[in-house]
Amino acid sequence: MNNFIFQNPTKLIFGEGQIARLSKELPKDKRILVTFGGGSVKHNGVYDQVVAALSGFDFLEFWGIEPNPKVETLRKAVEVCKRENIGFLLAVGGGSVLDGTKLIAAAAVIEEDAWDLVLHPELLRGNIPFASVMTLPATGSEMNRGCVISNLATGEKYAFYNTYPTFSILDPTTTFSLPTFQRACGLADTFVHVIEQYLTTTGISPLMDRWAEGIFQTIVEIAPKVLSEENDYNTMADFMLSATMGLNGFVGMGVPQDWSTHRIGHEITALCGTTHGQTLVIVLPGVMNELREQKASKIVQMGERVWGITDGTIDERIDRTIAATEEFFRSLGLATRLSELGIGEDVVEAIVARFRERGTLLGEQLNIDYKLVDAILRQRM
Amino acid sequence: MNNFIFQNPTKLIFGEGQIARLSKELPKDKRILVTFGGGSVKHNGVYDQVVAALSGFDFLEFWGIEPNPKVETLRKAVEVCKRENIGFLLAVGGGSVLDGTKLIAAAAVIEEDAWDLVLHPELLRGNIPFASVMTLPATGSEMNRGCVISNLATGEKYAFYNTYPTFSILDPTTTFSLPTFQRACGLADTFVHVIEQYLTTTGISPLMDRWAEGIFQTIVEIAPKVLSEENDYNTMADFMLSATMGLNGFVGMGVPQDWSTHRIGHEITALCGTTHGQTLVIVLPGVMNELREQKASKIVQMGERVWGITDGTIDERIDRTIAATEEFFRSLGLATRLSELGIGEDVVEAIVARFRERGTLLGEQLNIDYKLVDAILRQRM
Repeated sequence: MNNFIFQNPTKLIFGEGQIARLSKELPKDKRILVTFGGGSVKHNGVYDQVVAALSGFDFLEFWGIEPNPKVETLRKAVEVCKRENIGFLLAVGGGSVLDGTKLIAAAAVIEEDAWDLVLHPELLRGNIPFASVMTLPATGSEMNRGCVISNLATGEKYAFYNTYPTFSILDPTTTFSLPTFQRACGLADTFVHVIEQYLTTTGISPLMDRWAEGIFQTIVEIAPKVLSEENDYNTMADFMLSATMGLNGFVGMGVPQDWSTHRIGHEITALCGTTHGQTLVIVLPGVMNELREQKASKIVQMGERVWGITDGTIDERIDRTIAATEEFFRSLGLATRLSELGIGEDVVEAIVARFRERGTLLGEQLNIDYKLVDAILRQRM
Repeated sequence: MNNFIFQNPTKLIFGEGQIARLSKELPKDKRILVTFGGGSVKHNGVYDQVVAALSGFDFLEFWGIEPNPKVETLRKAVEVCKRENIGFLLAVGGGSVLDGTKLIAAAAVIEEDAWDLVLHPELLRGNIPFASVMTLPATGSEMNRGCVISNLATGEKYAFYNTYPTFSILDPTTTFSLPTFQRACGLADTFVHVIEQYLTTTGISPLMDRWAEGIFQTIVEIAPKVLSEENDYNTMADFMLSATMGLNGFVGMGVPQDWSTHRIGHEITALCGTTHGQTLVIVLPGVMNELREQKASKIVQMGERVWGITDGTIDERIDRTIAATEEFFRSLGLATRLSELGIGEDVVEAIVARFRERGTLLGEQLNIDYKLVDAILRQRM
């Protein structure tokens, strides 16, 4: 096991009716900027609950943080923070709203431009404290330091790390109005977040392995009910909890991590605007197949414990595990090939060119170069 | 799933050589009291590492916090804190040293006696900040708010809740000198901590079920290597991590909890001085058997996922699961019957009388009264 330091101070406030607790958790002596996405929270009752809880507080609203939040939008919110002397940020919506808010929080306390901060994290000088009402189980942003920001002008998409949300309120009933595609992407996103922390090698930490597999098993078990839209409370609560636990550090203690699927998937989103979770399930089978020797022991363990594959040669078990994983993603109604989304060779070439130019090396062994990215993407066409 | 609020701010600093980080983590502007147990840390190198890291700090030492820490001892440390203007406490040793230190931390800032604080938690008025170097995987005290304090004069033993350690340093190599019996009790303690949060009913949270089962599976998998004293680093690291994760709130989110085995076990320790982990494995099979109908679905699920029991009637599966659990404890070299430790009917009667007098009701349904305690203990004689 690798040495590690773990600390996650976010207060997780979980359950039906908990949005009303905003009145207890928010600071009374600061001007609050509440950030929103495109308006779905006005249709599912979340906005009304938030405004009711904020009665008596000094707050402003900022609307329009889009999926894959764009720095062009976030800059406007940074201006509001500076002009209006904002002392606390509350993100209400999905992972994109919170991701964008994490950058706003940090960019509002420096002179430099928000995109410079993404490119040069050494500019970070603290932040305006922020919290969230999270309505979409997917990114785990509600209990981690990370965010992913896009630049419309340059077609780039990068991760940025600020600090943790002070608190996050998760009410599973807010997920009841989610469309099927977003549920599917949230399940897929959670699954792949965990696999990035899991699919390296066996024998480092049996406990972390079991906990990662526990999230896989849970996601596989609940997926049909999540997608059925019967909105069983315990099922949607477990979906929400799984998404949070999948990317808050709990399953990544002392173990190596990969993250190549995300890095490649981000490029697809940056160039084509494809939904994040959708990109991941296209890329992942390619990573598993190209790295099948290096990751053999872990793929076989996953096959046995998650998909029940207990016989055959090592190669057969690896093939079947990759196929079962892809089949699970297809059962969610997601595409697993670039061609299904009309993404062609020009995009693959553009992505490979980017990795070649940057000289980026990916994966837990930093051995995935642009040539391997090319091989991974070509088998996903 | 029940509504819940989760927040655990402890900084976990994990790995070989991490004790040296004390010099970075401890406050330079406060007088520190370092608390110790009986002296084993002087033989395994831990004391020397701590003192080296504390070079340049203003610190005093307090020795002699015993297993099942006694309020009579802790009062002396409270006096030292008050007299010497102590501003930070560092517990070095096992769970008992840290448990005792949690009470010292709270009792040092009030006028009332430390035992009054245990009996009347409403007297809590904050605490001196505290941290730990944890050398014994067992109690999970290094990442939770709880402690269990004994009173020698009255023969009582109760839980008390303060706040979380600021940080805890866990170096798996510090476990290499642990005797076999302490390793066995630590494995058993971890197992039963998790079962108290697990063995209620199914269908509340598949994820929390999987994570609890993940700790059981890990403990069962690593136990032979932990006991073999070959001191494989990754094995001992996973033992240590499992103990911490077993009682830091991570597997108990939104699910009902039992804790009757602990409450009954504490009475055995209070009256006979029996090691905590040892009492738990004696009591647990009795709780499982007496509550077999109420807990049927969970016992069957545990049997299937942890012990591989997949056929037979419900009753047979329950019997086999209880037997497999007891057999696992015996494989650790622990006694599972009161008679094996020379504990007889007089002790059982004294414990039952205590529960009758107090009118205490135990278990997740608060339906374990003194008569059921009597039945549980009589079948463990």
